[in-house]
Amino acid sequence: MLTMDKLVALCRNRGIIFAGSELYGGLANTWDYGPVGVELKNNVKRLWWNRFVQSQPLVVGLDSSILLNPQVWEASGHVGGFSDPLIDCRQCKNRFRADNLIEDYCAEKGISRDVAGLSNEGLRELIDKENIPCPSCGGHNFTSIRKFNLMFQTHQGVTDENTTPIYLRPETAQGIFLNFRTISRSARVSPPFGVGQIGKSFRNEITPGNFIFRTREFEQMELEFFTPPAEANTWYQYWCEECMSFLLDLGVKKDNLRMRAHTPEELSHYSVATSDIEYLFPFGWGEIWGIANRTDYDLKAHMEYSGKDLFAADPVTNEKYIPYVVEPSVGVERLLLMFLADAYDEEELEDGSTRVLLRLHPLLAPVKIGILPLSKKLTSQAEEIRRRLAPLYNVELDDRGSIGKRYRRFDEIGTPYCLTVDFQTEEDGCVTIRDRDTMEQIRLPLDELESYFAEKFRI
Amino acid sequence: MLTMDKLVALCRNRGIIFAGSELYGGLANTWDYGPVGVELKNNVKRLWWNRFVQSQPLVVGLDSSILLNPQVWEASGHVGGFSDPLIDCRQCKNRFRADNLIEDYCAEKGISRDVAGLSNEGLRELIDKENIPCPSCGGHNFTSIRKFNLMFQTHQGVTDENTTPIYLRPETAQGIFLNFRTISRSARVSPPFGVGQIGKSFRNEITPGNFIFRTREFEQMELEFFTPPAEANTWYQYWCEECMSFLLDLGVKKDNLRMRAHTPEELSHYSVATSDIEYLFPFGWGEIWGIANRTDYDLKAHMEYSGKDLFAADPVTNEKYIPYVVEPSVGVERLLLMFLADAYDEEELEDGSTRVLLRLHPLLAPVKIGILPLSKKLTSQAEEIRRRLAPLYNVELDDRGSIGKRYRRFDEIGTPYCLTVDFQTEEDGCVTIRDRDTMEQIRLPLDELESYFAEKFRI
Repeated sequence: MLTMDKLVALCRNRGIIFAGSELYGGLANTWDYGPVGVELKNNVKRLWWNRFVQSQPLVVGLDSSILLNPQVWEASGHVGGFSDPLIDCRQCKNRFRADNLIEDYCAEKGISRDVAGLSNEGLRELIDKENIPCPSCGGHNFTSIRKFNLMFQTHQGVTDENTTPIYLRPETAQGIFLNFRTISRSARVSPPFGVGQIGKSFRNEITPGNFIFRTREFEQMELEFFTPPAEANTWYQYWCEECMSFLLDLGVKKDNLRMRAHTPEELSHYSVATSDIEYLFPFGWGEIWGIANRTDYDLKAHMEYSGKDLFAADPVTNEKYIPYVVEPSVGVERLLLMFLADAYDEEELEDGSTRVLLRLHPLLAPVKIGILPLSKKLTSQAEEIRRRLAPLYNVELDDRGSIGKRYRRFDEIGTPYCLTVDFQTEEDGCVTIRDRDTMEQIRLPLDELESYFAEKFRI
Repeated sequence: MLTMDKLVALCRNRGIIFAGSELYGGLANTWDYGPVGVELKNNVKRLWWNRFVQSQPLVVGLDSSILLNPQVWEASGHVGGFSDPLIDCRQCKNRFRADNLIEDYCAEKGISRDVAGLSNEGLRELIDKENIPCPSCGGHNFTSIRKFNLMFQTHQGVTDENTTPIYLRPETAQGIFLNFRTISRSARVSPPFGVGQIGKSFRNEITPGNFIFRTREFEQMELEFFTPPAEANTWYQYWCEECMSFLLDLGVKKDNLRMRAHTPEELSHYSVATSDIEYLFPFGWGEIWGIANRTDYDLKAHMEYSGKDLFAADPVTNEKYIPYVVEPSVGVERLLLMFLADAYDEEELEDGSTRVLLRLHPLLAPVKIGILPLSKKLTSQAEEIRRRLAPLYNVELDDRGSIGKRYRRFDEIGTPYCLTVDFQTEEDGCVTIRDRDTMEQIRLPLDELESYFAEKFRI
């Protein structure tokens, strides 16, 4: 049975994910991706890009900057509205997120309460009504609720005019809206078309947590699909299905996934329809992917603030309209956590020992092929094979320790194939290939390696 | 003849690079990479990763976070020493970088002066001695020189304890040093071994410029190679050669490159040897890649500040030592600018017209294959080919405008092959492949497409 503790320990021991700034006692809720983790992360990003940008006839890519003109965040509503409801205990001076305070209390007491969509006043009333105590000191002396903006602020430039703050982007989406015009001109496209982007975003979350599930610094993979209003619902359905298929095609277990449509109360003010793909983590169901029909909210807001023309024209009637946007948005780290949790398995072997393995899809596997000389005398032969395969796949040569221990290590990082060079190799020109999942072994001629693996790792 | 203006215009028109936040009048010195640019950028990063991490037997990868514990920057010397010398004109209140002030003046007057390594006092003396005027008002009434730290500051968290600033990293290198222990343990490696990383860094430069050559937000590709001190010089040579070969293998013209060793005066305080690979841009020679022998400066500093053991042990004598670090460090945007500038070509055709093209290496090319149906009636046939090739390569189907104009467009973004579907295709099952550089055309059966391009885009 997988617990978060087991997963965190495996990640640390096997170079998948380390606590950030560990040498200096850490920095709350930052994580570094080690030699194995960075390969997994890169695979997640490459596969998303391949599926949602490269392979899509109507989608192009973008890489916009993290630092944007601060007016962008006025127009998008982030300066005014992107905030968490904070409440202070007057007695012990601790600070909490009011909605979490209620949720945690209700969960503990088995009370069913939906706080989504409640105003600050509504939250405050609920705290009084349920007589919810401070989780730290037990007191009942709370302040009113204040809004705390989630954007990280900084300053750019050195002259006195540059004292106005700029922000680290809290989402990559706005960079796409800003480039609607430049892209549709230079790529000569008009709706329906989409723009995909992968990049870091930053949110000064009050309560980050659950390992890498919610972090202040994170990476997003967002697609903004611009469409004539009449087609928005069709495209919304299309992207909901496409996101789900992507996960299933990469082997995620169907029973651990569900698609949940937002209730009218949950919907953001700019959305007429939103669905979340949720995954059953060891800590419960968690949101993985949000697919939203954002209407013309974004382009309209930027038209008003910038005074620039962001209309599209109907190719037949030539009538002008503001495109609707359908947005499938997903976090890299969250997706990565899901792939790890879903792939984790423990298997009892015939000798009574337990084998831990990550049953990752071959395309996701951080190390594709483990190369194991049976003895150190065979290392130079194994090195020759490594050199042949290394430009094509992330492979690893390991000649230290017993062959059994080496197999275990490769199992634990999800390596789908181990290639063993033995003393017969020089004679018969063959190596042994072991399959991670079945542990079955076959004998393969050296000159068939490339074609064998090309088939196994075909996209 | 290539000028920066031509390059900037081409980048804007063809969706390679746009000015950031253009919709709101921009944000000084930020740039967005459009549909074509993002593919080029991704190719640069993938090729670097393939060559310097994946294919290297002694190098592993890392992805550490941008936000680090602020003590890191105390230890590294960035809080104390990572600053530019600023000087103000008392008369017109303009602010300048003192070293640039001198350099610009001397360049204009044809005076040869080396300001590298000069202290603030030395710079101030030189300004007085040469009687350098304020470039804005011509006055001679300067303040003394102040140090301006180049790190972007921000704040994390919401409780009152979190009011100490944290920084956006000005380099990715420190994240690697911090993980020296965790990586060498989990990957079971000891020096010589290296750790490669790609990621965003931020420097609040006073004088960014030359298009994307120097920007405040940029992406680095850094390799920190840990080595026993006695081997440091050998590895320094090795990495100098490896970096140069990488550029030459990707087709950069030899005459536009030079390797320049730093003079003793230029060397950073932590370095015993540094070489820069420089490229001849339209604006002159500019640094592309810095390869430095940083000695044990970094790990020693972190040992002292953190109180943690960062020793390595000699495998034979078991003697403890602090590893030396050899660092090849390069910026993604700068490399990209070099590839663009080097690939740019204008060719006079027989009809007297001029063909603009980017002679990019096929592995760098943003769009690998242009797919062109000769008539819109052939679009569905072309779309079938697109669907087959799209998961393998970034291809683009273009069925708008004359075939000649479409060829020109693909030439301008460096697409090495154009595939034309014509009315004969249905009969003979063949398409025409046009080579970007030679403009020669061949006729190729459809079922040979995959193997043909696999050969052309072999890494």
